[in-house]
Formats: sequence, structure tokens, C-alpha cells
Amino acid sequence: MSEKKQMLLGLGFTGAYGANAKAWKSEGVTVTTYPDINADIRYAQLAEKCKFQFLFIGDFPGAIPDDNREVPAMTLEPIITATAILQQTKHIGVASTVHTQWNNPFTLARQFKGIDLMSGGRIAWNAVTGSSPKVAENFGVKLMDSRSRYESHYEFVETVQHLWATWGKDALKADKETGIFADYSQVKPVHISGKYIQAIGALPIPPSPQGQPVIFHSGGSPNSIEFAGRYASVMIGEVWTREQGIATRNALRQVAIDAGRNPDEIKFIAGLMPVVANSKREAIDRHASFMDENIVQQRAFHIGMVLGISLTPEDLERPIAPELLDKVKIGAYSDPRAENVLKVAREGWTLRDIIYHSVIDYHPATLGDAKETADYLTEMFESGAADGFWILPDAYETDFKRFVEEVVPILQERGLFHEDYNGDTLRENLGVPYQYGVDKRLS
Amino acid sequence: MSEKKQMLLGLGFTGAYGANAKAWKSEGVTVTTYPDINADIRYAQLAEKCKFQFLFIGDFPGAIPDDNREVPAMTLEPIITATAILQQTKHIGVASTVHTQWNNPFTLARQFKGIDLMSGGRIAWNAVTGSSPKVAENFGVKLMDSRSRYESHYEFVETVQHLWATWGKDALKADKETGIFADYSQVKPVHISGKYIQAIGALPIPPSPQGQPVIFHSGGSPNSIEFAGRYASVMIGEVWTREQGIATRNALRQVAIDAGRNPDEIKFIAGLMPVVANSKREAIDRHASFMDENIVQQRAFHIGMVLGISLTPEDLERPIAPELLDKVKIGAYSDPRAENVLKVAREGWTLRDIIYHSVIDYHPATLGDAKETADYLTEMFESGAADGFWILPDAYETDFKRFVEEVVPILQERGLFHEDYNGDTLRENLGVPYQYGVDKRLS
Ligand SMILES: Cc1cc2nc3c(=O)[nH]c(=O)nc-3n(C[C@H](O)[C@H](O)[C@H](O)COP(=O)(O)O)c2cc1C
Ligand SMILES: Cc1cc2nc3c(=O)[nH]c(=O)nc-3n(C[C@H](O)[C@H](O)[C@H](O)COP(=O)(O)O)c2cc1C
Repeated sequence: MSEKKQMLLGLGFTGAYGANAKAWKSEGVTVTTYPDINADIRYAQLAEKCKFQFLFIGDFPGAIPDDNREVPAMTLEPIITATAILQQTKHIGVASTVHTQWNNPFTLARQFKGIDLMSGGRIAWNAVTGSSPKVAENFGVKLMDSRSRYESHYEFVETVQHLWATWGKDALKADKETGIFADYSQVKPVHISGKYIQAIGALPIPPSPQGQPVIFHSGGSPNSIEFAGRYASVMIGEVWTREQGIATRNALRQVAIDAGRNPDEIKFIAGLMPVVANSKREAIDRHASFMDENIVQQRAFHIGMVLGISLTPEDLERPIAPELLDKVKIGAYSDPRAENVLKVAREGWTLRDIIYHSVIDYHPATLGDAKETADYLTEMFESGAADGFWILPDAYETDFKRFVEEVVPILQERGLFHEDYNGDTLRENLGVPYQYGVDKRLS
Repeated sequence: MSEKKQMLLGLGFTGAYGANAKAWKSEGVTVTTYPDINADIRYAQLAEKCKFQFLFIGDFPGAIPDDNREVPAMTLEPIITATAILQQTKHIGVASTVHTQWNNPFTLARQFKGIDLMSGGRIAWNAVTGSSPKVAENFGVKLMDSRSRYESHYEFVETVQHLWATWGKDALKADKETGIFADYSQVKPVHISGKYIQAIGALPIPPSPQGQPVIFHSGGSPNSIEFAGRYASVMIGEVWTREQGIATRNALRQVAIDAGRNPDEIKFIAGLMPVVANSKREAIDRHASFMDENIVQQRAFHIGMVLGISLTPEDLERPIAPELLDKVKIGAYSDPRAENVLKVAREGWTLRDIIYHSVIDYHPATLGDAKETADYLTEMFESGAADGFWILPDAYETDFKRFVEEVVPILQERGLFHEDYNGDTLRENLGVPYQYGVDKRLS
């Protein structure tokens, strides 16, 4: 087995049938209800078959699309979706998003620790504050400013970690000879009386296989990087260029070092939307099939803004004139996707095809054959722009299958992705250390 | 098939290995962790094999026993336990307890509706306020007085029911021809601004197979009966005598009638702790094996109180003198178990054996052969003291197995229990009507 450092791979669960809100129309999908847990389970099993370390379940509770052609985002609900998937898989881990601004730490701590126990140590909590005022309304909560949000977030996360460790490591006896089930003097209730959180009590659950669930965090703001560098084992990010990846990963590692951690304890995961086909043209056409004309027009307008030139729907069917492109200046604070827009535009594609290259999207995209995607991942990984990737295929049924069958083997041949799970727990498979309670180095 | 009215049966999940806190010591149990979901699943499958309509998952979050010989009560957590069990079963329903005093209606509505969808319509919510000040502390909440607790409970439950019905029945289209996934104009957000609850939003989930989850309630106080008679389909109760059962069930039905419901829409479920053996003596010895001497002494003292006579540990090995028993007067407001204590005492058992009869316990018990238990259930059911029973065997591995193998066939032979599931959903198997949204008759 290769001793070379290897990348982590996760599948992003952002809609029941794919990252694209129109994946429900793709081949192989039959919608009877929504979201369909049996589809989730099928895709989770596919990701497990090719040895992905994790699934990432994002969450924006209660989001109803404006467009009748699109599906509501994400899964039924991250706690129950994770529980069901983990019942139907054996090795893959699941990172579930639950917000700290409108949930109770006792319930959250109990559910995650319970799932960790049930799954043999395969759960992670994606600990985010929740930053959408619209989502907050569902819960009857007013969103606080960023500073207060993170202040309460720290209190919440520490309370959860304290609760995870209330049960002494040797408290469980279950000794039929002596009749002693547990030494409850080793169960130490928390007494939290913070600015935001009050809690007195203990979880009646012994240590789970991972000690406690892994902590993920998704974001990218300075507050977010500061939190993740101190508390998280994995940060799910969004970066569009190698340079941005290197800078973000280094910033994260520096926070970890400043907190007294080994920087290798925090893994930075970049997103990728891969479209794998037999050729670039085929991939472009495939991706185009998920794009309605109104989106094309919105993005044409957006590309004009990004490049600082004026573009209209009439420009869609021709390349952007080289003289115009020559005048474009990309500032340090402009859209991070600008550089790639310019690169693709310079290749001479029509504006429509530039858009179909997915240059304006939530994450960078690769369009072409399997090697194209494998090369991108290799380069990003080897240049230190990411420790791994979360993959966001348009449609799981088809596009993810091609990624699994064609891209993963290339990465494995190159020794950049493991051939099999080495550990039993998510923690082991991520290569992050065992933890029980709040990290002593932080206090 | 018999047209005779038939009883409902449920299994009470009050500890991972049985209703008795010492069930972990019983034959066939190997404790590796706690609570063990694989044990829960095994017992759920056993209950399904003999066609039980439901499992009842009670909850007292965070309860740590005082006695090192006992297990913490209940399951890992009701939402995740239900999800896991429903993944591993096909027909049986699960009623999970979640309190209204320290949870958010949006999360609760979403999780239950999600589970309903996942399970093909087999979930119920046991909607209780939560009445333990100790449990409230876990959540940083001060328990309100009973009146306010129920006032907020009504608001909470109605909010949940409104949320369950935000998605119009025909909103889901998923029409690949037209490209329309849903008609979101049929999704109507709630705007709740109550005394206790605020919520603005909609669940992004179409109707589930039951329309919405079934509502259970467990309790017995006047407030509790008032709530259940209006809002619940099933009330889980505790009654010690036939008369008490008849009175409770009638009170519940009267509330339903006053609310404009058909009283058959609300099912009253009484508890039973059956000990099935080859003879009464064997059953008594079996039950005694779960009882430590300190419990025996506590109960000796309690029996003295109940009968109004003074009993000491020295009295344990002899019957209570008939002259003493003759003087006992049982008042209308005394312990409802008193009558049965007196009956058993008059049979001439030693005080120790009276205690081993389980006369002082959470629910009535039957001790003897299978017919003894079947006769009790038959009589209670036929006299209108209950519409069904939740069964609380000392240990699931052994005692529940005997109930399944020996008692259920007798009830089926008598035409008092169904031979198989008639419906696909819990609602159908309970014989309670379809519902979508708040019951129109209540407003
Ligand atoms: C890659 C990525 C994934 C995210 N996933 C979620 C999510 O699933 N749910 C959510 O509420 N917020 C999510 N966020 C939002 C962030 O947690 C964060 O709130 C947002 O970036 C704003 O930053 P701030 O909270 O520091 O103000 C995500 C952000 C990024 C960059
Ligand atoms: C049979 C039965 C089962 C109960 N199960 C639970 C339970 O699982 N969790 C809980 O918090 N309360 C449970 N309770 C408590 C009741 O919901 C109720 O709070 C209690 O009886 C006090 O009545 P009150 O709330 O009307 O004051 C149960 C009560 C009974 C009688």
C-alpha cells in the first residue's frame, strides 16, 4: 500500500437526486414522493462501493423554491436521513448539518451520540450557526449579528462536547456476576450557565466508538475559519482557484497551530461539480440539458458584471470579442470565478457555451472525460489547495455513477485515493484523532 | 375473518432489554454497549412477527439511575430509535415520545413527517408536555404550572398539525413532460404568532402516506384526558382495575363526543406486565429473580401504607394475619393498587410472595400460565376497560418471547386479535381516520 498522502472524498447531498435542482428529470429517476429516502440510500451505497469517506448532508430547513421546475433543497431532515442511511450501509460516514441558533444542545448532543453508537462510529455533526434570516423565521427566531451568532455558537458546541463526555470511560460495567450495570458515580452532569446556554444534566450513554462524533464545519468567512481551525476536524469549503484553496487551507491550519493543535488534525475539503462524458463537447451538452433558458440569461448578465463588460441575450450565440476580453481587469476583490470565466472565454466558445461550462455556479466544475476531472483533483490536492473534495454531480443516478466508475479508478491507480476503508470509524477513515469531551488544548 | 371488535396490542419500550431495569441480566442478553439498537430492532421484529400494531417509545431524557444495578430508562433517543427500527421492519408502527416544553415545533413537525414518508406511514408522535422538573433542567427550562403547560401544549400541537399540512395535496407534480416538479403556489406557509409559539414557514414535504403522523398521548390527569380526547387517536394509560379502566375510557370518549368526534376515533390503551410461565409458582419465582432485597423491603413498607397496617421486614416470610386484613378499609382516594393487594393477601401468600406478585408496580401484572394472561386481557377488553394494551414484559428476550408464542395465539383463536395486518399504514392498522392538518371540528 502506498505511503503517499491520500485525498479524502465525500458526496454532497444537496438535493435528493443530484446537486442540480432539475436532477429529478434525469434518466433512471422515478419520483413517487420527495425527498425519497430510498434514492438517498441507493446513492449512499454507491458512494460506499467506491470507498468515499463521507456523505455531506447540508441543510436549509424549510426552503421552498421560487421556480416550479426545481426541487426543494437538501434532504428530508439531516438527523433522520443520516440514521436511515447508516442503517443501510457499513463503512461510509455521514456528516449532518444542524444549526446552533434554534436548537437545544441537549437534544442535539443526545441524537448525535446516539447515532454514533448505532452506527459503530460513523457520524459527524456539521456545526454551523445558521445564517439565513428566512430559515430563522421557521423557528420563530430573529437572527443575531455575526459576532453574537459565533459567540453563542462556541457556547453551544462546548456544551455539546461536555455532554458527550458526561459518562466516564469506565462507567459501564454490565457485570452479570456482581449485578453491577454501571458505576454512576463516574457519570458527571454538566452545569452550564452561560450567556446563551443553560443546561444541567448528563447523557445516559457510555462512550461511543469514536469517543464522540466528529465535528465538521462548512463556511468560509473569517469567523467561520476561526471556529473550524479551533473546533472542527473537517471544514467543507467553497474555493474556485488553486490559489484561493491554498490561502484558505493555510489560514485554517494557522488557526489550528495558534490553538496548539497539529494542523494535520483539520482537513480542508473543496467542492467540485464534475461532468464526466466521452468528450468536452458531450459534457457541455450534458450539463446544458439541466439549464433552462432563464438561468442562461441570468448567467449571461452575471458574466457581464464579473468581466465589467455589457452583454445582452443577443450575444449568446457568439464568442466574446478578443478586444473586449483584452480590456478586462480582474481586481483582487472581484468574483473569485472571474479568472476562470476569462480563461474559458479566451478559448473562443460562444457565450452560451461559456455558461454551459458552469463557470458561474456554486463550485468549480470540470467538464470532459474522466481524466480531465482526475487531473483537476490531482493538481488541487498536490498543490496543497485541499485535503480532499466533496463531489457535487448534477444527477446522482447518472453523473455520479460515471464519476465512481471512471474517475475513482484513475485516482486509485495514481495512489491518491485509498483502495479500501482502513478503519472502522469515520474518525479513523478521515485520519483525525480520537476525542472525548472538549479539546483540553483550547481551555 | 371475524367481524368481532378486536383489541390493539403494543410493546412498551421502556428499557433496552425489558420493562424491568434489571432485564440486562436475563438469559440471552449480552451487553456490549447501551442502549443497544440491535436489541431494539430484534424485539421490534419479534413484535412484528406476532402482528403487534405498535411499539411505544416513552422518554425521560437524561434520567440517570440512583442504583448501580439498574439501566438508564428508555431508548437512545425516540426520533433516531424510531427511524432505525422502521428501516428494519415492514408493518409495525412506532409511537415516539417528544415533549412540547423544550422542543421547537418546526423541527419536530419536520422529523415526524419525514419519518412518516420514509416508513410508508408507520409513525406516531406521543405528544406529552414533559412534566419532570429534573428533565426540564437538561434543557435549561423551568417547568411551568400545569395550566400553562397545557396551554402551550395546545399551541404547539396545533402548530405542528398546521405545518404537516402546508403542502397542498396536489402540489407535487413531478411531470417530466412539462418539466414541472411542483406547484409551489399550493404550498401555504404558516404564520403563527401565539402566546408561546412563533413560526413562519412551510415544510417542503408533500403529504405522507398517513396524511400526517398519528397523534398519541400518554397520561391520566384531567388535563391529559381533555387533551387526548380532543387531539389524540390513541391514549396510553395506566389503570389498575377494570372499573378504573371503564371510567377512564368513558371520560376520554365523552371528551371526544363533546368535541364533535366519533368516540371510536380515540383508542384507550391500558398497560400490563405479564409474566408467563408453566404455573403461578414458576411465574412468581421468575419475577422474583428481577427483584433485589432493597426493593422487596421498600415494597413491604409500601404495602403497609396502602393497607393502613404496620409491616416490618420480619413479616416478610409469613402471610398477613386474616384479622389484620379484615380491618382494612380501602377509601375511594387510596392507592388504586390497594384492592389487588388485599385480594392477593387474602389468598394466604407470605408477604414476600405478595410482593413477588408485582402488586406494587407501574402497571397491573398477570403471573401464571398463558391462559391467565389471555383471560385477563379478554376480560378487560370485553368489559370496555380498554381498546387495547401495551405490554411490558420484564425481559424482552425471554418473557416477551413467551407472550408472543403462547398468549397471542390464544387471543387469535378467540377472535380477539387480528391474524395479520390489514392495512399498510399505522393509521389503518389502528382503525383511526385519515387526517391532514388540524381537525376542522375543533376550531
Ligand atoms: C461550502 C459551504 C456549505 C455550507 N452549507 C451550509 C448548510 O448546509 N446550511 C447552512 O445553514 N449554512 C451553510 N453554509 C453557510 C455557512 O455556514 C455560513 O453561515 C455562511 O458562509 C455565512 O458566514 P457566517 O456565518 O460566518 O456569517 C455553507 C457555506 C459554505 C461555504
Ligand atoms: C402510562 C403513562 C406513560 C407516560 N409516559 C411518559 C413518557 O414517556 N415521558 C414523559 O415525559 N411523561 C410520560 N408520562 C407522564 C404524563 O404525560 C403526564 O405528564 C403525567 O402523567 C402528569 O400529568 P400532567 O402532565 O397532566 O400534570 C406518562 C404517563 C402515563 C400515565
